[in-house]
Amino acid sequence: MTKVRRTERMIALTKFLTERPGHLFSLNHFCELFGAAKSTLSEDIVTIRQAMEQFAMGSLETVSGAAGGVRFLPLKSQDGTCAFLHELAEKLASPERIIPGGFLYMADILFTPDLMVQVGEIFFSRFSHLSPDYIMTVETKGIPLAFMTARAFNLPLVIVRQGSKVTEGPSVSINYVTGSGKRIQSMSLPRRAIPPGARVLVIDDFMKAGGTVRGMYDLAHEVDVEIVGTGVLVGTAQPQVKLVEDYLALLILHEVDQQRKIVDIRPAL
Amino acid sequence: MTKVRRTERMIALTKFLTERPGHLFSLNHFCELFGAAKSTLSEDIVTIRQAMEQFAMGSLETVSGAAGGVRFLPLKSQDGTCAFLHELAEKLASPERIIPGGFLYMADILFTPDLMVQVGEIFFSRFSHLSPDYIMTVETKGIPLAFMTARAFNLPLVIVRQGSKVTEGPSVSINYVTGSGKRIQSMSLPRRAIPPGARVLVIDDFMKAGGTVRGMYDLAHEVDVEIVGTGVLVGTAQPQVKLVEDYLALLILHEVDQQRKIVDIRPAL
Repeated sequence: MTKVRRTERMIALTKFLTERPGHLFSLNHFCELFGAAKSTLSEDIVTIRQAMEQFAMGSLETVSGAAGGVRFLPLKSQDGTCAFLHELAEKLASPERIIPGGFLYMADILFTPDLMVQVGEIFFSRFSHLSPDYIMTVETKGIPLAFMTARAFNLPLVIVRQGSKVTEGPSVSINYVTGSGKRIQSMSLPRRAIPPGARVLVIDDFMKAGGTVRGMYDLAHEVDVEIVGTGVLVGTAQPQVKLVEDYLALLILHEVDQQRKIVDIRPAL
Repeated sequence: MTKVRRTERMIALTKFLTERPGHLFSLNHFCELFGAAKSTLSEDIVTIRQAMEQFAMGSLETVSGAAGGVRFLPLKSQDGTCAFLHELAEKLASPERIIPGGFLYMADILFTPDLMVQVGEIFFSRFSHLSPDYIMTVETKGIPLAFMTARAFNLPLVIVRQGSKVTEGPSVSINYVTGSGKRIQSMSLPRRAIPPGARVLVIDDFMKAGGTVRGMYDLAHEVDVEIVGTGVLVGTAQPQVKLVEDYLALLILHEVDQQRKIVDIRPAL
């Protein structure tokens, strides 16, 4: 246990705290690591919190008591959220993204880490009051953003598989009707993926009629867990009435016009 | 442009640099943000680099010239890598993980953000000299760790889909024979997901005979990209000869004995 200079201590503390959002570090852990008194570390934490708030980089939460400590909350400011979603909408509005059939190519955006880190922080900022225990998504394209949301929350991710090809022990499957295509599909979840009674936040990349998310509600009912909220990156304006009532879309897709090569997509926050 | 105190500047700099691994920040950007001279920032960067090295938290790389700047490299030390892989092997060796058929349940580990951040940093530390342009994986279970690897590299991820259900414009499909099951499967990739000539690092969660990765080599050949390396979290000891010659496995699974309830899995590094 060698004594560490204040500046080095601040740098290391900032790195340790921010690389594990939501993880509760005990002050004793840092006292030993840095050879510093508890009162010194408490002062450090106040300074770090102030610097973070000055630059809108999230916040620190201190929890008192024997099991207490300090953790980093990756909260995104309203200004930062607006600016980011405007930038994202602009990127997605490029006519080159139109795929025959009136779809929008989004995979490059969905699979870019920097962007999805920010989407995860926005979902955390909007949904942390719901205190979920798990983040849930359905394969495939929503997985990266759901995983980044799980990281912002410091929670495990649960991935619902399409079909019933699961080779992970006993599983529960349901059939559901896709809202737009009116086709019957199945989705499944290994029994051991999530314990009964868990609170679940559903995160997905795209919602049109909401059939897939509706299916996840039915699956959640079967495995006896509660869905406490639903967030999607992009929701379509039409149909206005979705199969799921309560959801948050960060961007609204109003129109994809193949003929005139126009994409109308706008931030919802 | 208000002047910022040194401590606050250090905290903010550390956060900005480390939250975007691999991203090159120009010094001018920070000069404006903090109202500080370039020489001051250069000194700050030396201090941050020293603190990072002292606590084995990665490193900073400075790039000189007009297009230069500074970036964070999330390098993981040999000691840290060993300790982490031992811990992971211990978790995976629990007999409760054995699934009928002699499989090992790994989803909870694969979908825990904290753990996959570290796996991503290990792959970055081992493969950064290969200078890939893209990280590639195949759906589903390897996506979180491949995405965290993409984040450590500051690169986009490309996800190969199983089957040919892709609705993302023109795509290329191939058939491949699974190494273990001897079944014929197909996998596909949208044309626009990756440009010809790109250098690709393949990352996956599990390799037994290597049939899936072999399929990705064939697919890469079809879309005219070069696979420069392959990393898997867990490789099996048997069969010794895989369908892919050159790969790095972080953990080796020697045996899953359903009868005696024994899992033998060990770090390979």
